Amino acid sequence: MSEQRVIRVGLVQMAMDPDAQVNRDRAVALVAEAAGQGAQVICLPELFTTPYFPVVRDAKSPGETIPGPTSRLLAETARKHGVVLVGGSIYERDGDRFYNTALIFDDRGELVGKYRKIHIPQDECFFEKDYFTPGDLGYLVTKTRFGSIGVLICYDQWYPEAARMNALLGANMVFYPTAIGTVAHLGEKEGPWQEAWENVQRGHAIANGMVVAAANRVGIEGDTTFWGGSFICDAFGQTKIRAGAEEGVIVQDVDLDHGEVVREGWGFLRNRRPDSYNQITE
Amino acid sequence: MSEQRVIRVGLVQMAMDPDAQVNRDRAVALVAEAAGQGAQVICLPELFTTPYFPVVRDAKSPGETIPGPTSRLLAETARKHGVVLVGGSIYERDGDRFYNTALIFDDRGELVGKYRKIHIPQDECFFEKDYFTPGDLGYLVTKTRFGSIGVLICYDQWYPEAARMNALLGANMVFYPTAIGTVAHLGEKEGPWQEAWENVQRGHAIANGMVVAAANRVGIEGDTTFWGGSFICDAFGQTKIRAGAEEGVIVQDVDLDHGEVVREGWGFLRNRRPDSYNQITE
Repeated sequence: MSEQRVIRVGLVQMAMDPDAQVNRDRAVALVAEAAGQGAQVICLPELFTTPYFPVVRDAKSPGETIPGPTSRLLAETARKHGVVLVGGSIYERDGDRFYNTALIFDDRGELVGKYRKIHIPQDECFFEKDYFTPGDLGYLVTKTRFGSIGVLICYDQWYPEAARMNALLGANMVFYPTAIGTVAHLGEKEGPWQEAWENVQRGHAIANGMVVAAANRVGIEGDTTFWGGSFICDAFGQTKIRAGAEEGVIVQDVDLDHGEVVREGWGFLRNRRPDSYNQITE
Repeated sequence: MSEQRVIRVGLVQMAMDPDAQVNRDRAVALVAEAAGQGAQVICLPELFTTPYFPVVRDAKSPGETIPGPTSRLLAETARKHGVVLVGGSIYERDGDRFYNTALIFDDRGELVGKYRKIHIPQDECFFEKDYFTPGDLGYLVTKTRFGSIGVLICYDQWYPEAARMNALLGANMVFYPTAIGTVAHLGEKEGPWQEAWENVQRGHAIANGMVVAAANRVGIEGDTTFWGGSFICDAFGQTKIRAGAEEGVIVQDVDLDHGEVVREGWGFLRNRRPDSYNQITE
């Protein structure tokens, strides 16, 4: 493992086409663009090969196997650029079960981790329980040349437990492939969604002394506007870079030693009281 | 229990004198001021009867018993104004053990809850393990006329588990009596402390659909500047009011139904996956 401590992180923010191959080609081009800007760990959005089909209850999507066309392409792309690639997520078909699955490839193009989304929402325009079996592989943190990388998917990002599990497994960066947007006919009666979305994740960064990065989609699909706003915050929850609402890439250097300073200085992990948390696992 | 859903919350932000009676008198006057502005639930800062003595390792403080002069005065103050009073915290002496303890009084002046700080830091200028036995009473949520109220103390505020435990116990508001400041000779090498402090708590509000309110101290004590910045955020993490760095009170109406909208709309509690959180209690 390299001793490198300053890592350049890249996020791909993209709009999705009905044609999976168009999306795959665009993803590959945007990964190349981020790599061209020096990114060493690059993350794609959730379900980046398709429109966000769980907006309705009866979408037909065949899913794809792993290995399959997307996983092979991602492996090749990671190898070609020598980057760690958090391959967004794909709609995985495994026998008669379907999952929302993120794959991590190392800089040689090896598949080094697979995470199946654990928290599955079921709400108007986000009918994910109709499509995704809840993840059954546990949480995933992968040691790479460029740091110990955790991956969670979209709705997981509202769960402090998921972030904490990643920290306990040793993550110093957590990536969230995401597909979140506002739905015109639903409104935002609770308050501004995007601000809460970013803020709760910044809280995870602070509480765990981890870099947090979320790669969202953009574009209008039916009544939903995916807001983009992909961001990277440091291990004390400071947002260092945030994308707008356009397709493209953002890159940001993060310093893993900064995370150590936060963890050592504040002692959040060493001063935990697991004996007092019983109801959290009940 | 009243059906009242819009509750006026008041926070007391104050500087502490070496003389406990001066502090008690000031606290009572500020509670009266908040009550005069219509506050129904009022919170005092952490250790509000004394300077922040854990700044050094060998402070002499006798602590006080419960009941004792402070608890009796708080009970009388709550009764007099007909308010629920989260009585900051006091340095509790119980036999040969000492705790950092928050007391909750209902609007009739009855002591209805007692919480002993669970997460205890031990850092340069915050040597709390030298003084406080870790809390042994678990988390506390109290049903009152003005909502189900949780209380946590200062360093607890960095722990998502503590906030979640309060939510699981039914809190719709959580109060954090606090004593936090910056120490000139330590600096803020991780990034801006006050922003991270507020932000991590806003994250708890969002993740749990709870109002969060923190009452901090102000003033310069030795090398430490307590920054005030007491704030109240709604159940979607929007900061509704924030104090400056002066002594005084802030009041804010909060709508408990808004918390229900957040919880129902986003489903964070019903979609939890406790089966996947095992390491959190290990």
